[in-house]
Amino acid sequence: MAGLTDPNLLFAAEGRPLALARDLYTGVKDLPIVSPHGHTDPRWYALNEPFPDPAHLLVVPDHYIFRMLFSQGVRLEELGVPTLDGGSVETDGRAIWRRFAEHYFLFRGTPTRLWLDHVFAHLFGIDEPLSAGTADRYYDTIAALLQRDDYRPRALFERFNIEVIATTEGALDDLKWHRMIRDSGWQGRVVTAYRPDAVVDPDFEGFSANLDRLGEITGCDTGTWVGYLDAHRQRRAYFKEFGATSSDHGHPTAETANLSDAAAAELFDRIRRGSDDERERKLFRAQMLTEMAKMSRDDGLVQQIHPGSWRNHSPGIFQKFGRDKGFDIPARTDYAAALKPLLDWVGLERDLTVILFTLDETSYARELAPLAGVYPALKLGPAWWFNDSPEGMRRFREMTTETAGFYNTVGFNDDTRAFPSIPARHDVARRVDCAFLARLVAEHRLREDEAHELARELAYTLAKKAYRL
Amino acid sequence: MAGLTDPNLLFAAEGRPLALARDLYTGVKDLPIVSPHGHTDPRWYALNEPFPDPAHLLVVPDHYIFRMLFSQGVRLEELGVPTLDGGSVETDGRAIWRRFAEHYFLFRGTPTRLWLDHVFAHLFGIDEPLSAGTADRYYDTIAALLQRDDYRPRALFERFNIEVIATTEGALDDLKWHRMIRDSGWQGRVVTAYRPDAVVDPDFEGFSANLDRLGEITGCDTGTWVGYLDAHRQRRAYFKEFGATSSDHGHPTAETANLSDAAAAELFDRIRRGSDDERERKLFRAQMLTEMAKMSRDDGLVQQIHPGSWRNHSPGIFQKFGRDKGFDIPARTDYAAALKPLLDWVGLERDLTVILFTLDETSYARELAPLAGVYPALKLGPAWWFNDSPEGMRRFREMTTETAGFYNTVGFNDDTRAFPSIPARHDVARRVDCAFLARLVAEHRLREDEAHELARELAYTLAKKAYRL
Amino acid sequence: MAGLTDPNLLFAAEGRPLALARDLYTGVKDLPIVSPHGHTDPRWYALNEPFPDPAHLLVVPDHYIFRMLFSQGVRLEELGVPTLDGGSVETDGRAIWRRFAEHYFLFRGTPTRLWLDHVFAHLFGIDEPLSAGTADRYYDTIAALLQRDDYRPRALFERFNIEVIATTEGALDDLKWHRMIRDSGWQGRVVTAYRPDAVVDPDFEGFSANLDRLGEITGCDTGTWVGYLDAHRQRRAYFKEFGATSSDHGHPTAETANLSDAAAAELFDRIRRGSDDERERKLFRAQMLTEMAKMSRDDGLVQQIHPGSWRNHSPGIFQKFGRDKGFDIPARTDYAAALKPLLDWVGLERDLTVILFTLDETSYARELAPLAGVYPALKLGPAWWFNDSPEGMRRFREMTTETAGFYNTVGFNDDTRAFPSIPARHDVARRVDCAFLARLVAEHRLREDEAHELARELAYTLAKKAYRL
Repeated sequence: MAGLTDPNLLFAAEGRPLALARDLYTGVKDLPIVSPHGHTDPRWYALNEPFPDPAHLLVVPDHYIFRMLFSQGVRLEELGVPTLDGGSVETDGRAIWRRFAEHYFLFRGTPTRLWLDHVFAHLFGIDEPLSAGTADRYYDTIAALLQRDDYRPRALFERFNIEVIATTEGALDDLKWHRMIRDSGWQGRVVTAYRPDAVVDPDFEGFSANLDRLGEITGCDTGTWVGYLDAHRQRRAYFKEFGATSSDHGHPTAETANLSDAAAAELFDRIRRGSDDERERKLFRAQMLTEMAKMSRDDGLVQQIHPGSWRNHSPGIFQKFGRDKGFDIPARTDYAAALKPLLDWVGLERDLTVILFTLDETSYARELAPLAGVYPALKLGPAWWFNDSPEGMRRFREMTTETAGFYNTVGFNDDTRAFPSIPARHDVARRVDCAFLARLVAEHRLREDEAHELARELAYTLAKKAYRL
Repeated sequence: MAGLTDPNLLFAAEGRPLALARDLYTGVKDLPIVSPHGHTDPRWYALNEPFPDPAHLLVVPDHYIFRMLFSQGVRLEELGVPTLDGGSVETDGRAIWRRFAEHYFLFRGTPTRLWLDHVFAHLFGIDEPLSAGTADRYYDTIAALLQRDDYRPRALFERFNIEVIATTEGALDDLKWHRMIRDSGWQGRVVTAYRPDAVVDPDFEGFSANLDRLGEITGCDTGTWVGYLDAHRQRRAYFKEFGATSSDHGHPTAETANLSDAAAAELFDRIRRGSDDERERKLFRAQMLTEMAKMSRDDGLVQQIHPGSWRNHSPGIFQKFGRDKGFDIPARTDYAAALKPLLDWVGLERDLTVILFTLDETSYARELAPLAGVYPALKLGPAWWFNDSPEGMRRFREMTTETAGFYNTVGFNDDTRAFPSIPARHDVARRVDCAFLARLVAEHRLREDEAHELARELAYTLAKKAYRL
Repeated sequence: MAGLTDPNLLFAAEGRPLALARDLYTGVKDLPIVSPHGHTDPRWYALNEPFPDPAHLLVVPDHYIFRMLFSQGVRLEELGVPTLDGGSVETDGRAIWRRFAEHYFLFRGTPTRLWLDHVFAHLFGIDEPLSAGTADRYYDTIAALLQRDDYRPRALFERFNIEVIATTEGALDDLKWHRMIRDSGWQGRVVTAYRPDAVVDPDFEGFSANLDRLGEITGCDTGTWVGYLDAHRQRRAYFKEFGATSSDHGHPTAETANLSDAAAAELFDRIRRGSDDERERKLFRAQMLTEMAKMSRDDGLVQQIHPGSWRNHSPGIFQKFGRDKGFDIPARTDYAAALKPLLDWVGLERDLTVILFTLDETSYARELAPLAGVYPALKLGPAWWFNDSPEGMRRFREMTTETAGFYNTVGFNDDTRAFPSIPARHDVARRVDCAFLARLVAEHRLREDEAHELARELAYTLAKKAYRL
């Protein structure tokens, strides 16, 4: 390993599997990036301002990083993570960076390490390992580069060779940054995605007020089931104007329901009045996944279902720091029973696409691959979150391919808010897929010409096609 | 890879692990096929008529194939799958074959692809890949060969070097094809297996009429618990006359029960009168697994338990096309608690063999290997259905061997109705096992002489012994 | 493979991954053994008497061995396992040994085989495989060596280069052997660990009498909640006098509770009066895990939680032979929900260490790594019991490292009562870890200098640090 990254990263150590992987990778490494699902901030592309200092760009907002340091005794305040009550936290970027650098060894064996070393090497041109001893040199180098025009968001977007990127906005968002991007004349393709959790999940903070606001925005009567559904249809259409080709749904489980219109309307009335019956609130979420699938059948938005994360597991952290502070713990997740109501309704549709994700790898071979391998409406999203890692992606291919094939999967998405790491993440995914294909060829399970075709599909084509981009 | 199949298929890419695997495989590749569990049609061996055209032999009846094409938008009617109402479907074998060939790329990375290429190469002598461009040449070649006498069922049986094959018949079957085979003087050994689901599962279509019929056939009073059990004993004895050495049980779960005689008799009465209590029907199925185990202890039939498949998941497909159309989705399956009533009764018996299968790989290391590694009555069946694949079989060995050893497993069975693919399936299994053994030797966990002995056990001896064939 | 063990055991077959693994292993193979969790008998070190004959040392007490032979039809009586009623069993060591030797082939592919061959080769200097033909030669060789002074417990302790070993004693134990060791002046470091299951689990045999006894020993009023907790505190302090740095908890599940003081006191009263409400007994166990964590926060004992084993699965064996006869079957185990009450209370503490174990590998990537990767109080114990095996340890690293990193794990512990096998077990663990690290280096995911550092941490430092030894 010369410098921070090796050209043969993640390939077999030697021999024909290495040669094959390298060869496959050569054919795809420079393909444009299609990023159909992620969480970068459209404001960046709209305003095109310089990014902040290294720590506030790379450390403070990255829950992969601060959760690991926290697990080893570093306090979140010391890493600059803001508290809800505005209590004092570290604000000095350099101090935060040094703390991070001292603990960088903790990431050995993790994907965070691979992504960061890739960013350090390829984006910032650094070739010595990060440690306490090199922390300042790192900080100065990166800070200086971030001031340059060619390190502003749009320049990086172009340098990264991003063909299209999707952000995610809530149903109540006015999409003003997207409008600004569109009006700016800049050619970068940034699209939104419809994320209605705040107006679909009765447990969401401010749910009732959110529905009021949804009514105001759309002019629909969100006091009734019919008006509420119409409001969704309007918002979906509005999001489509800003390039949306998909909706995204982050539910605690994959449960769906298929109530009659009358029963659904009655349920909505109870929910709208603030039902405190946990089963009703659960049933409402379940019903809404099916309703969204039906709307997708009608308006063509691809439906993404991201279930199974227990958010904000620690009340202590939640109360002090708020949502999404690394305390999201995967839960065992069912699909075969949970999705049946939705599938009974629209699963055989050939023009609908529902993309399933999981944090529970036990479902890959047992449920997800068998479901996606037969229902025309279903496709499998890539290895997600904690599983978006070399071992995780390898297991995904090993456990889904034999039953669902490659063509019921949808390529890679980076799912990140860490803009600078996007090329690194796609690079890791491409490498892992090429290594997997190389193994199939080396074991004579696939011809070499097929592997080349598949490498391109997995790196580029499938995502474009599945997400209709 | 020259032609469609490579001599080193599924072995390590190179070096000592390759050499070892090849060497082990050389010692077992020509061993006779013992096929102790499958679903070929005894009619074939009885009448020995030519097989139909290529599509109706290889595509139309194979749910692995049509489910994959269906998942990608091909309609079942276009593949010739008959509808229940006799509505029009494609009947032209060549048209079906072309559709299949166009979509053959979908099977990249699947076991279906390995089996089919093996059949194309070794049975039909073809050496170019199947695609739209070669579809007709394939069709003509195969169709012509299927007309030849040496491609009739008995000739293939002999060519395949099948020492013994088991079919599966329902409890009400008169076994006339088996009688015809026996009376024909042909030397091929075809045995039946006792599959009583239709008279054991209250949810089975026509359950009540099935029990009436069971009474007629046996002269037992299937209106009473005692008479009903006697009827089973009679049918089991009848099946044994036609070579049966095993029974087979396809239950939704592995649940067993151990009611007192009085309680069981009472439950039977309620079930016989058509109980609509789901718990009672479930309990009856559970009780019957234990009853069957007790009969096995007495009459020596090996009991196979195949739990955990959610059959006919899509009501739309079930209503239009009927059972077994690729919509069988594995379910999470418990064993440690579910089997306890049965094991408490007969688990310590040393002359009883109960073979457990699973579609839920999470149970391999957690429950199945620990159970089979201590209860004398238990053995582990091979990787089943979706898991009957290179990765699936490899995971089976990796997750069961360290706790259960090799000798609490029962070798391979093909579980197929696709007669031409039987050699291919055994070949894949032998290769995967040899590759696994080669790895153990290469890592110095096993001596080479032991690996040779084990290769033979896994390919041939264990199945004969476990199934008492 | 020359002789019984090869220097390259468990490494990659060849090339750079082999060279790297061997190199890493060279750096750690001679490190002292830190054995922070195990079940050897302190009496051995106290009295330093010769071990018994080979069969009674290596076969009769080892449930890994007799469960495998039992599963293949050998009766426990034939292996010398004593019955509760004192019924006749084989007592002739040589006869037992021969029976074992005849069946030694059953262990092919198991860790028991690796451990035993290591013991035979390295401790007893034997270099031909064990079989019926060599049984007597083995027996004579081993029996003769066991008579020598340099094969007595303390001599072996020193020869094994054990820096410190922990035994496990029940809360009511007087620790007299530990006292005798301490008073003897011998320098070997043997510490105890606090295992209170018998006074914490209302289902434990003699629970009520155990609590009475706990009161007598401590002078606390174990008729009240406050007195009962005080008794625990006293015993913990007493155990600390004999070197204890940890407590150990073998619960059926990982469930914890966090009742108010009043509710806990009330629950204790009902339990103390012999509640027959299963939910109450379960809740009490759950509450006690949290109480023990709180005491750990105060007195610094590391808390080990070993959940998920269904003990004594077969009532037939339990009634005849008693506890722990190989019929312990892992159960599906939850952590994210089960541990929440405990974590809500003390999970963010930076000075508390709670080490989690599992027999349910599905929890590694889904729950355990995400939990340990964020909660400061949590660490992951190594692959346990059936998973303490090459494939099991490899899966542990593959499924936990990417999310929890290496530094939220605690190195290896042998968890054994089989004293002679301790070096073998640590050797296997060191080899597997070195092979895993070698793969990361060969795939350029880790630098070589980091791997050397990590190899040492995994083999030695992490265990010392985590267990505060």
